[in-house]
Amino acid sequence: MSDEPAQGPVTTEAPAGLALPTPDLIAALSAIVGSEHALMAPADQARYLTEWRGRYVGRTPLVVRPGSTGEVARILAACHAARVGVVPQGGNTGLVGGQIPRETGGEIVLSLERLRAIRAVDSLARHLTVEAGLTVAEVRAHANSLDRQFCVSLASEGTCQIGGILATNAGGLDVLAHGSARDQVLGLEVVLADGRIWPGLRSLKKDNTGYDLKHLFVGSEGTLGIITAATLKLRAKPEETATAFLALADLEAARAVFDAVEETAGPMLTAFELMSAFAVDVVARHVPGARRPFASPARQPWYVLMELSGSPAHRPAHLVRDEIVAACAEAGAIADAVLPASQAQTRALWALREAMSEAQKHEGGSIKHDISVAPEHIPELIRRADAVAARICPGARPCAFGHFGDGNIHYNVSQPVGMDNAAFLALWDTMSAAVHDVVAELGGSISAEHGIGRMKRGELARLKNPVELALMRSLKAALDPRGILNPGKVV
Amino acid sequence: MSDEPAQGPVTTEAPAGLALPTPDLIAALSAIVGSEHALMAPADQARYLTEWRGRYVGRTPLVVRPGSTGEVARILAACHAARVGVVPQGGNTGLVGGQIPRETGGEIVLSLERLRAIRAVDSLARHLTVEAGLTVAEVRAHANSLDRQFCVSLASEGTCQIGGILATNAGGLDVLAHGSARDQVLGLEVVLADGRIWPGLRSLKKDNTGYDLKHLFVGSEGTLGIITAATLKLRAKPEETATAFLALADLEAARAVFDAVEETAGPMLTAFELMSAFAVDVVARHVPGARRPFASPARQPWYVLMELSGSPAHRPAHLVRDEIVAACAEAGAIADAVLPASQAQTRALWALREAMSEAQKHEGGSIKHDISVAPEHIPELIRRADAVAARICPGARPCAFGHFGDGNIHYNVSQPVGMDNAAFLALWDTMSAAVHDVVAELGGSISAEHGIGRMKRGELARLKNPVELALMRSLKAALDPRGILNPGKVV
Repeated sequence: MSDEPAQGPVTTEAPAGLALPTPDLIAALSAIVGSEHALMAPADQARYLTEWRGRYVGRTPLVVRPGSTGEVARILAACHAARVGVVPQGGNTGLVGGQIPRETGGEIVLSLERLRAIRAVDSLARHLTVEAGLTVAEVRAHANSLDRQFCVSLASEGTCQIGGILATNAGGLDVLAHGSARDQVLGLEVVLADGRIWPGLRSLKKDNTGYDLKHLFVGSEGTLGIITAATLKLRAKPEETATAFLALADLEAARAVFDAVEETAGPMLTAFELMSAFAVDVVARHVPGARRPFASPARQPWYVLMELSGSPAHRPAHLVRDEIVAACAEAGAIADAVLPASQAQTRALWALREAMSEAQKHEGGSIKHDISVAPEHIPELIRRADAVAARICPGARPCAFGHFGDGNIHYNVSQPVGMDNAAFLALWDTMSAAVHDVVAELGGSISAEHGIGRMKRGELARLKNPVELALMRSLKAALDPRGILNPGKVV
Repeated sequence: MSDEPAQGPVTTEAPAGLALPTPDLIAALSAIVGSEHALMAPADQARYLTEWRGRYVGRTPLVVRPGSTGEVARILAACHAARVGVVPQGGNTGLVGGQIPRETGGEIVLSLERLRAIRAVDSLARHLTVEAGLTVAEVRAHANSLDRQFCVSLASEGTCQIGGILATNAGGLDVLAHGSARDQVLGLEVVLADGRIWPGLRSLKKDNTGYDLKHLFVGSEGTLGIITAATLKLRAKPEETATAFLALADLEAARAVFDAVEETAGPMLTAFELMSAFAVDVVARHVPGARRPFASPARQPWYVLMELSGSPAHRPAHLVRDEIVAACAEAGAIADAVLPASQAQTRALWALREAMSEAQKHEGGSIKHDISVAPEHIPELIRRADAVAARICPGARPCAFGHFGDGNIHYNVSQPVGMDNAAFLALWDTMSAAVHDVVAELGGSISAEHGIGRMKRGELARLKNPVELALMRSLKAALDPRGILNPGKVV
């Protein structure tokens, strides 16, 4: 959890069972992509080797940047023959170290960033086929130009790439209404460990001709194959959205409002984001221009940012919102509400939510958990996690926020004011294990949307059912028998 | 395609690579389930061995009917140790022979019908955990009693079982709005080939802790594991549905209306079923009480049954329907329309659609195709398939109907009037191969919702990409290394 940045020359230790890249292999890989896309100088490699928060810093003799699926295939065929590990990388925004090679320098880094073609769009823009290296923001912009929407929305969308969000089954803000990245995929093109290409780019709504392979690759974090292109669903853009920022006396109120809005507005509900008062404070304190939505008399321990979206088939979204807010206020579930009247006010409320991860850095060390339970268990989850945090580190400041409607809470814990940063972070494993135990007791997930990567591999092995772990290992052995794909990640 | 019913005693030929069940194994399996659930008499076995249309008739020394997941596990462990093939069976409604043992009698049949518990429902009835042997109709009724709906609806729902519809990823009438059986699943319990149990019953909306195993078992037709229980999504029941029966001058009109309704009513559109005039005629002719919706002046070559469903968040469904029908009629896309004013009229229109498969039997032999393409390619698909049918069998009568909105057409071809039934059915392979070639050229699927089973295994091998076939075989070898699960099916 507290890896030091690696220093000095690349070492000569290969992952277990694998060989080191030889000079001949490096020359062969360089010849495949051309020397300008075979990065060996530390300055050129730096941005591929450092995780954005600095938690993982790896080494490699070579970063290759293939320009086509065919080049990816040739690289994997060569590495497979040589039994050399390959770490695929998209926008390098992952949060669990899955995209960073190990510090011992025995693996090749394969960046997908040059696979940037938009390959196809159908006449009614129901789906779009793109290569792995386009950013999510670019795909969203392209969908927008077709008067459609691509329903993955993440804080990192300007940087994260399509291949990466599919390999990790990314979540984000659109999951409540439209599902995870997995649910946006109709077909995939994947290069297998030995360099064969699976041409699975399809756009069919129904196809029962054999096993569903796409769902196996989505979420496998580059350990079963490398996604080079995808056919993605596009959806109708909403005609109108209506937002509300709600102040709540407790988490039971959040649950009551969520149940009511799901019942009444069901398919219109596109966001139900929870924030603790501390999380809102942190943003108000550190983000220039950020403002608390309420004057101080309205201060409550919990807040919810709710959004309804309407198509022409729906009743007007702002009317449905007003009815729900009035009914919940009447029932005593809402202490106060802001109903923004302009786009600018709406943007300011969303900015508050979106700045949360970043702003928390200013409060010192943070021990983070990306956990999920059934929405009805969220109050108990947070109550018990708070008790764990207080027991393990008195004075620690829980900063909970996240996707209430998905059951997914980012349960981050900021260090006590004035505590030594390193001493606090040294508690990471202890605190995480205890929080994860609570999650497991509630039947939840220890990684709702960030994946396993390197960071949670130990916890996965500790908490996952052994039959399931064995099944995952069987699949890994079947699809990557030499273990060259992202060694040491996930399983 | 024209298997004769098997006669005489059980033969002694095991599938390749497998052993015959010995008397000791049969005694051991009988002891696991108790003698009353170990069926050996031909009269007791008959209903498990005959496919409902009589196309496949198998033999077996033993039908076992376990009463619990634990018994399923013990049966598979014993068969795995003995290297004996096992054919899992649900309601025996499959259309491709996947649920029937081979005629040579070397396999055990394992019926899931006694696994009938409803294991759990959450407080808000968002999901339901049931065992494999409940029928779809029973699960729908239970959901209804909770004021919710389970969104799989099939003609065979009174007989087909949850385990079977998940193992085959069944489609049906709810796919357009809610997806296939796969999309109703949150978690599974599966017994693996060697008897281990994967306890994957979860209800989490988000969980990125490793590979997605449930999607691998769903649709694998019992060749990778046996599904014993599932956690299923329940959805809100619609407040109102509005139906229209449309007469259309050609398939381009069907496409235009579909595009318009998808654009305008998007999330409200719950059915868009296509029927040829011949298909409607067949029902009107043979089903007692069935009536053509239009008087003869309205006769057109194509008909569509469209349904919109509204929640409290939607505009009234009948208003949206009326607007769409008026706009499409104005644009010349609709020749005539029936807008039923009562539940009874609506039921009569649906009965017409639902009777189609059954009624077609009365027209003699039928060569059937369950195919899908992108909805915009349906006009071309049917035009070209009609040419194929006329070329291979002049006078043959195409009877096309199906789920236009899913791109899925049941392209059935009735024999020419007066032709010898056997002579017509002898054309099955020739005609199917030619129709499937058209489908392949349009990027479609040769099995949209019925699966591969035994019937389409040859066509799968002929038309599927070889890398994809090899991948499927790798997965089969990894999860069922001895090949005991449903031998000779799918791959």
